[in-house]
Amino acid sequence: MISFTCDYIEGAHPEILKRLVETNMIQVEGYGEDHFCDSARAKIKEATGCSEADVFFLVGGTQTNATVIDAMLRRFEGVIAVETGHIAVHESGAVEFCGHKVITLPSHNGKMDPAELRQYLEHFHGDPTWPHMVYPGMVYISFPTEYGTIYSRKELEQIHDVCVEYKIPLFVDGARLGYGLASPAADLSLSELAARCDAFYIGGTKVGALCGEAVVFPKGNAPRQFFTSIKQHGALLAKGRLLGIQFDTLFTDDLYFKIARHAIDMAMLLRKEFANKGYEFYMDSPTNQQFPILTQQQMDALDGKVHFEVWDKLPDGRFITRFATSWATPRENIDQLAQLI
Amino acid sequence: MISFTCDYIEGAHPEILKRLVETNMIQVEGYGEDHFCDSARAKIKEATGCSEADVFFLVGGTQTNATVIDAMLRRFEGVIAVETGHIAVHESGAVEFCGHKVITLPSHNGKMDPAELRQYLEHFHGDPTWPHMVYPGMVYISFPTEYGTIYSRKELEQIHDVCVEYKIPLFVDGARLGYGLASPAADLSLSELAARCDAFYIGGTKVGALCGEAVVFPKGNAPRQFFTSIKQHGALLAKGRLLGIQFDTLFTDDLYFKIARHAIDMAMLLRKEFANKGYEFYMDSPTNQQFPILTQQQMDALDGKVHFEVWDKLPDGRFITRFATSWATPRENIDQLAQLI
Amino acid sequence: MISFTCDYIEGAHPEILKRLVETNMIQVEGYGEDHFCDSARAKIKEATGCSEADVFFLVGGTQTNATVIDAMLRRFEGVIAVETGHIAVHESGAVEFCGHKVITLPSHNGKMDPAELRQYLEHFHGDPTWPHMVYPGMVYISFPTEYGTIYSRKELEQIHDVCVEYKIPLFVDGARLGYGLASPAADLSLSELAARCDAFYIGGTKVGALCGEAVVFPKGNAPRQFFTSIKQHGALLAKGRLLGIQFDTLFTDDLYFKIARHAIDMAMLLRKEFANKGYEFYMDSPTNQQFPILTQQQMDALDGKVHFEVWDKLPDGRFITRFATSWATPRENIDQLAQLI
Amino acid sequence: MISFTCDYIEGAHPEILKRLVETNMIQVEGYGEDHFCDSARAKIKEATGCSEADVFFLVGGTQTNATVIDAMLRRFEGVIAVETGHIAVHESGAVEFCGHKVITLPSHNGKMDPAELRQYLEHFHGDPTWPHMVYPGMVYISFPTEYGTIYSRKELEQIHDVCVEYKIPLFVDGARLGYGLASPAADLSLSELAARCDAFYIGGTKVGALCGEAVVFPKGNAPRQFFTSIKQHGALLAKGRLLGIQFDTLFTDDLYFKIARHAIDMAMLLRKEFANKGYEFYMDSPTNQQFPILTQQQMDALDGKVHFEVWDKLPDGRFITRFATSWATPRENIDQLAQLI
Repeated sequence: MISFTCDYIEGAHPEILKRLVETNMIQVEGYGEDHFCDSARAKIKEATGCSEADVFFLVGGTQTNATVIDAMLRRFEGVIAVETGHIAVHESGAVEFCGHKVITLPSHNGKMDPAELRQYLEHFHGDPTWPHMVYPGMVYISFPTEYGTIYSRKELEQIHDVCVEYKIPLFVDGARLGYGLASPAADLSLSELAARCDAFYIGGTKVGALCGEAVVFPKGNAPRQFFTSIKQHGALLAKGRLLGIQFDTLFTDDLYFKIARHAIDMAMLLRKEFANKGYEFYMDSPTNQQFPILTQQQMDALDGKVHFEVWDKLPDGRFITRFATSWATPRENIDQLAQLI
Repeated sequence: MISFTCDYIEGAHPEILKRLVETNMIQVEGYGEDHFCDSARAKIKEATGCSEADVFFLVGGTQTNATVIDAMLRRFEGVIAVETGHIAVHESGAVEFCGHKVITLPSHNGKMDPAELRQYLEHFHGDPTWPHMVYPGMVYISFPTEYGTIYSRKELEQIHDVCVEYKIPLFVDGARLGYGLASPAADLSLSELAARCDAFYIGGTKVGALCGEAVVFPKGNAPRQFFTSIKQHGALLAKGRLLGIQFDTLFTDDLYFKIARHAIDMAMLLRKEFANKGYEFYMDSPTNQQFPILTQQQMDALDGKVHFEVWDKLPDGRFITRFATSWATPRENIDQLAQLI
Repeated sequence: MISFTCDYIEGAHPEILKRLVETNMIQVEGYGEDHFCDSARAKIKEATGCSEADVFFLVGGTQTNATVIDAMLRRFEGVIAVETGHIAVHESGAVEFCGHKVITLPSHNGKMDPAELRQYLEHFHGDPTWPHMVYPGMVYISFPTEYGTIYSRKELEQIHDVCVEYKIPLFVDGARLGYGLASPAADLSLSELAARCDAFYIGGTKVGALCGEAVVFPKGNAPRQFFTSIKQHGALLAKGRLLGIQFDTLFTDDLYFKIARHAIDMAMLLRKEFANKGYEFYMDSPTNQQFPILTQQQMDALDGKVHFEVWDKLPDGRFITRFATSWATPRENIDQLAQLI
Repeated sequence: MISFTCDYIEGAHPEILKRLVETNMIQVEGYGEDHFCDSARAKIKEATGCSEADVFFLVGGTQTNATVIDAMLRRFEGVIAVETGHIAVHESGAVEFCGHKVITLPSHNGKMDPAELRQYLEHFHGDPTWPHMVYPGMVYISFPTEYGTIYSRKELEQIHDVCVEYKIPLFVDGARLGYGLASPAADLSLSELAARCDAFYIGGTKVGALCGEAVVFPKGNAPRQFFTSIKQHGALLAKGRLLGIQFDTLFTDDLYFKIARHAIDMAMLLRKEFANKGYEFYMDSPTNQQFPILTQQQMDALDGKVHFEVWDKLPDGRFITRFATSWATPRENIDQLAQLI
């Protein structure tokens, strides 16, 4: 049985485990103030080209989104996202739990349209009753999106420009950031992304770590006393080393990008196999999530041999499925799958 | 340089790392639905003697306290704790952040007095203006307390009896549970503790794990849809295996208690060394945290050689210090310390 | 200058002011425990045909929605509303401020479609990932809606049936309840409405009172300790008499319905005048809010003579306007308007 | 039967009712944007000597405290109050409901000691673990206090100085402000108070209004978009005129202070009567709340003739009672009481 259900079905990249073992008995301070975290922060500043950046390590994606958004917003503000955005759909209302509305715009294969964003903001500020409504205080996008798509540099710039114009920050959810940047379709680098937003995070959980997300405020613009906010949100690890060591390893010798590229290579192979056999795709994804459309019969053929996710049923009775690769996907699994489909 | 600053300065017990490495490439489901978590849950049910228990794995202590308390309370209720309780002092207001007041009673070396608890509740319910006040909806104690002290079985029973009488649940913060139960002063077992409260957690972070706390609702009395609450609080790990494997290891062959006992053995030795040299103690702790009182001169003598925490200054100019041992403290460190004090 | 901008531009019905003056120096208890409130509660129980009802008096609409919804939901639940619902649009995110997502369904002239509601709930419960999403814990509708439309008895029943099927309560925002029930298009009475929901409120602010909304839990099903929740939400008046006297007056001699009927009579006249002159309407409203479409020229003609609200601009350059009548609208104002349009 | 139970047992000052009646049918805008509110704001600016002030009208005390405190604090901050402060005791946890801890200092007859405040802040900022605790972001005091006592100008200055030193705002709860300023013991004026804090409110509910509290930010320092915060907290009245007219009346011809002085005159008479008869007082209050100590026999003698509050029982079996006067207390009631005690 092989599985393509998601990108967090294995543990951590072996190099990470090796480092955890090697450093295990070294006594260090808690709460992210250890030298592993310091080292990881330095490497991330360099990799992002943001020498002034503030970098914090949190544990998981939903937690990171809620903590960052809540800390950056004022009490009466909400965050704009597309209606398929992770915070709008699959985080159990963690943002609303913190008191903030998620204001939704249409999703275009998971992406926000810069023109629609501007139009929304124009309309809001032009409406004399706006003080009776939730103030749009921030924009949230994910890179890549929940549908595996990515923004071009120009699109990101356009969204950022609107944010600058309306004086609200842009936050990029990078739970799968590595897979986005490693995509052949990507036309921007990590530092180029960092320069076009006010906060983002580098996802570890889905890209080789056991857990962990590195939050970056590129211009040293962390919200005041963000450490305390992290603690208050229950997101502070006593053994911060667990995160520091992992990100230090991931940002040594380009490991983060190397393993991300592997996942993309496997995804492209997988796509080719499906395409060669004449399968259609629900959407054209250039990253590690692929969405082939399967008939019931095709699904039955894989039953008990391959795991994957079924997302939805089409009116014609076929199914939208998701096959995800990761840093851990062996070439053999793709080959095995190729023989089964 | 040796350190006694706290019980989370090293990584994880080597057996845990070994298991993480061995199981690393096994593909499993996320979010705690994997077989490692299942196995850990089964072992914890057995160890607690609660075959009907609901068991959940969360990441850290503050997070666990906030999530459990918020899920068990109604909106208008608060939680009773002693004024030195961790939730009242050192969690950045995480409980209040969730909307609930921490109602404080006096601390007696970190412990709550059952009689004072009853008195408070009697007074509250006898006050005709009580609907204008925060309803005391839960009792929170820690075992051991923030001062290393522990409740006797009788004291725990008395507190539990008051809770039963007033129909409010008792929640035990067990961030250092192992060290409490392993203390020579403890007169109750894990299952005896489990039988005398409505919820508690078995601390992993401070007792051998990289991170992780196992929340137990002994009578299968988890709040409705607690899984969703965990997610909403940002406390759900995608790679739940990280927690499952750790707790499965800790509850195999009694490892959790063995390593806790080691920490206690070391603490008792440490205490003896200080006592033999004539040091006084701020408080008589039977667990892994010891509070010797040092003069400035004595502190200077340790400078650069031993790390420990300074808690407060006494009126006479001496200092209350904290020396903590853990599962990882080697006997040699105690010997070294003995020569320095 | 005459105004039709909304239904809260005047003070209170004169009978209310008279009663406030007459009773002014009578000494009574605070917080709604006075005999005026008792009397008003008794009259409302009778008028709603709910002898077991729990009745509470709050101050304003947004406050009432947030307080009731927050008290009826569990922490991890959200409330379903149409996307034009007041709580979704014009309450500054008061529901999210309390921690709950407003889950939106399409709006059909302000109304929720029972079939779409069922479909949403079916889909939610059929999705295996639902524990990662906000649990739909309640349905919110307004009667009449923000567009002046009303549910038929059958439609209300259908929505209620879905709620019963999914075991979630139905809450009816009755900020303009009187105007809805007094409409010639209404085919249900107050007691028939009360029998088909789990909570609703009788709007006072917009139907003759200075302020005040009477919340009714028809089956005595108020959330536990709702009084404390009201206080916690800042919604408890020290001088509860202000609300008690007003509702006691409104529910004496059918005053609430008499004055609501007057508003409807005036609205129907107003509509006829516009219709007779060939104006189109944005939507066919049977209640006190009317939405004639005006050209720029027609707007200019009214400038400085009549106040009304402009809601939106149509693609053809014309404007959707809102003209609202109320208990206070004199017949002469309609006649004056008729001469101007 | 006469009552001294509190200062909100009657309706409103007759002049207010008169104005409500006179202005009733004037059509005005909602939400506090009417000319009555404008006029009241102008008069309050003049009375407080703060020409740059921002003035807002809210409905009740608990609501005002929660709204102002939540809007002025950052997410991770708490508010410092004495342990008898209204927000700490009698507001059902409304401040914690909004996510903020109420940090308590000792109460000295209801007052905060400036030296203890400084000591607390010094200790907090000197503690290296402070980022793990709730940041003290604001100071709350009440004038007069819940025990009827008042701060001298010097005491207020000292507290304000500490706030300035630590760069945190000082907020004064003036639910009974008039009674404090009208006290013969008061050595400061309204404008002098306004100059020594960052926000305060002028209580209407307890000083002649049906409801209403006027929040003043003396230096035009209202939190950004405070209007929206008011709405979000459910504190915005659609018919803002109700508050505007009341405060406009109270600040015309010095009415607010005249009626406050009357209450104080009656309280001083009442105190003299008790003192002349040899009664002791629990505390020496210079304002409208008096706390004579009664035996059971003395209580029995008043039974059925006079209403008052019993606050607590002394160890010797006697009772601490509260007798409150107000703008509405007639001289005859004092005389009647004098004959009964």
